Amino acid sequence: MPDARQYIEIEGTLALRRGQLVSATIAYESWGELNTAKDNGVLLFTGLSPSAHAASSNEDPSSGWWEDMVGPEKPIDTTRYFVVCVNSLGSCFGSTGPASINPATGKPYRLTFPVLCLEDVALAGQKVVEQLGIEHLHAVVGPSMGGMTALAHTLMFPGVTKQLVSISSATHSLPFSIALRSLQREMIRKDPLWQRGQYDINAPPAQGMQLARKLGMITYRSAQEWSIRFGRERATDDAHHEDDDAFGITFEVESYLEAHAKKFVGSFDANCYLYLSRAMDLFDTADHGGSVTSAFQHLHVDRVLVIGVQSDFLFPAHQQEELVNAFNKRNIPTEYVLLPSIQGHDSFLVDMDRFRPVIADFF
Amino acid sequence: MPDARQYIEIEGTLALRRGQLVSATIAYESWGELNTAKDNGVLLFTGLSPSAHAASSNEDPSSGWWEDMVGPEKPIDTTRYFVVCVNSLGSCFGSTGPASINPATGKPYRLTFPVLCLEDVALAGQKVVEQLGIEHLHAVVGPSMGGMTALAHTLMFPGVTKQLVSISSATHSLPFSIALRSLQREMIRKDPLWQRGQYDINAPPAQGMQLARKLGMITYRSAQEWSIRFGRERATDDAHHEDDDAFGITFEVESYLEAHAKKFVGSFDANCYLYLSRAMDLFDTADHGGSVTSAFQHLHVDRVLVIGVQSDFLFPAHQQEELVNAFNKRNIPTEYVLLPSIQGHDSFLVDMDRFRPVIADFF
Repeated sequence: MPDARQYIEIEGTLALRRGQLVSATIAYESWGELNTAKDNGVLLFTGLSPSAHAASSNEDPSSGWWEDMVGPEKPIDTTRYFVVCVNSLGSCFGSTGPASINPATGKPYRLTFPVLCLEDVALAGQKVVEQLGIEHLHAVVGPSMGGMTALAHTLMFPGVTKQLVSISSATHSLPFSIALRSLQREMIRKDPLWQRGQYDINAPPAQGMQLARKLGMITYRSAQEWSIRFGRERATDDAHHEDDDAFGITFEVESYLEAHAKKFVGSFDANCYLYLSRAMDLFDTADHGGSVTSAFQHLHVDRVLVIGVQSDFLFPAHQQEELVNAFNKRNIPTEYVLLPSIQGHDSFLVDMDRFRPVIADFF
Repeated sequence: MPDARQYIEIEGTLALRRGQLVSATIAYESWGELNTAKDNGVLLFTGLSPSAHAASSNEDPSSGWWEDMVGPEKPIDTTRYFVVCVNSLGSCFGSTGPASINPATGKPYRLTFPVLCLEDVALAGQKVVEQLGIEHLHAVVGPSMGGMTALAHTLMFPGVTKQLVSISSATHSLPFSIALRSLQREMIRKDPLWQRGQYDINAPPAQGMQLARKLGMITYRSAQEWSIRFGRERATDDAHHEDDDAFGITFEVESYLEAHAKKFVGSFDANCYLYLSRAMDLFDTADHGGSVTSAFQHLHVDRVLVIGVQSDFLFPAHQQEELVNAFNKRNIPTEYVLLPSIQGHDSFLVDMDRFRPVIADFF
């Protein structure tokens, strides 16, 4: 299988916010060339589930998760910028995470992996940047969880990046989104196959993962989009399964969720999901100074772009405004765009006609 | 235990929309006295989970689910009106449902219970009214699922009620709410103890029910309310259980959901929940005439009150407006009140200071 991943090894002990790791690996992909001044780097953090494969390349021609955004002549133009996308620490696409082998025991970490914070994901991204010989980044970019990670990076390493692009993100998780993610985690933990994290790799807690993914999809989109796409359309007979009981699929929207949830289960490790999901809940900018305002005193960045989406109820407009107000308080030039996309939190992945020009203008 | 329930027996066969029942029982409670003209009856349909115990009485002095609304000198004034609240057909608080004994087999119906529609729940309510000798009702009232049932009743029995009060309801279920309820049902069905509905009554699918209840509570309230109530407050140590794994309760909002979900599990039958939940998905006014407009041609009602709540994302404001527009098209005098309550869909149960005057004024 084509693979564009590169890796850095972090020698010795990596001190995390609530623990430590020995000999961690971070996977990343890159596009474009680092210039001789080494100041054209763009560091991209991902949402919870994507890998570092943001865009296609010669090494891996398959479409990436942000294919429309990253590439030659695209809004994040790889003929001008050296773009680095990291697989999050704690994930399962090449970087060290709960599914990786603990060198101290020769067995997977599973729940012995330390509590993960988005600050640790940001730190791992910075290690990649440093090993690539980059002292100053042109920009740090992140959507969703990646936006929180990008903000953490900007707070933790003041002066490293000139610009920050925060997409459908927030200074902290609200109790509403914590409740939803907590329930997703519980669905996985209550699957008998989860076995307190000691599941057989060939018999993972697939049902729990499917339920969690369905709830995720419901919260990533908007009611309006689904009314337009599905209405009260009934599912075709193909959607019914032999093992369906009387309460199986009736409506097209149920069939859609089922198909997408099934796809996800094979591709993501359950324990990694739990760790990354909780890391989002734990994130709170106020931890960096007692309040958002005092945390932002540490910021050293020239220019910020905040993008939100009207129909996003997971990272709602008022959270975007809170971010913008905090940057404004520091007199940091901040552009704020609230897009009327109807695809909710996921708009940055699908409503490319609206997102492309905003990102292109900023770059 | 004090019990104010009364019962009607429906002799012979009750034809449902998609099946039939033999010798069905309907439980109800009543408050006040039927006047000699027999025209002061108010029929109250409930949401998915409550019993017929809407208010306290001499027979059962415990608080009812709408204690603030129904009683002497209360907005639905039982010194003036004879109020009847029915336990929904398909529920488990006295009316025939999937947990009841099928007289033909001597065993509980479980999944052999016919597909339930809200029209059947409305029909069962009408049977109670008829057996009480009431030909004309002063009003039919219903919140949430009860609002859909009240609307079904008004469509199916034109001229029986003079007035209709629809609270946080809709002409049909949207794909967004269908997706959420479908997922709740799946959580129960995927619980290994569900056993395709053949669970041991002493070992019900409690985990699935708890998950479903938590998702219910998340969707019944609003993000704004939880930000105010819980913020990012951490749970006290008391909230942690011995069997917690590393992903147990951290935040107060998680502890709150856990406590309330546990309470629900002992009180509601899982199969009944599945049937009533699906009945909401299936409800569509357009089934009564091809479209809402043509269905409403059958309406024969003098006056309507539609109440909605701004923060309700399960039965959102635009669905209230759709109802109001449909009544207006028929030139039926319709009052519309959209309340600024922050408690979401559940506001009619908790924001009584806002709901009481609106209902009182209408009556």
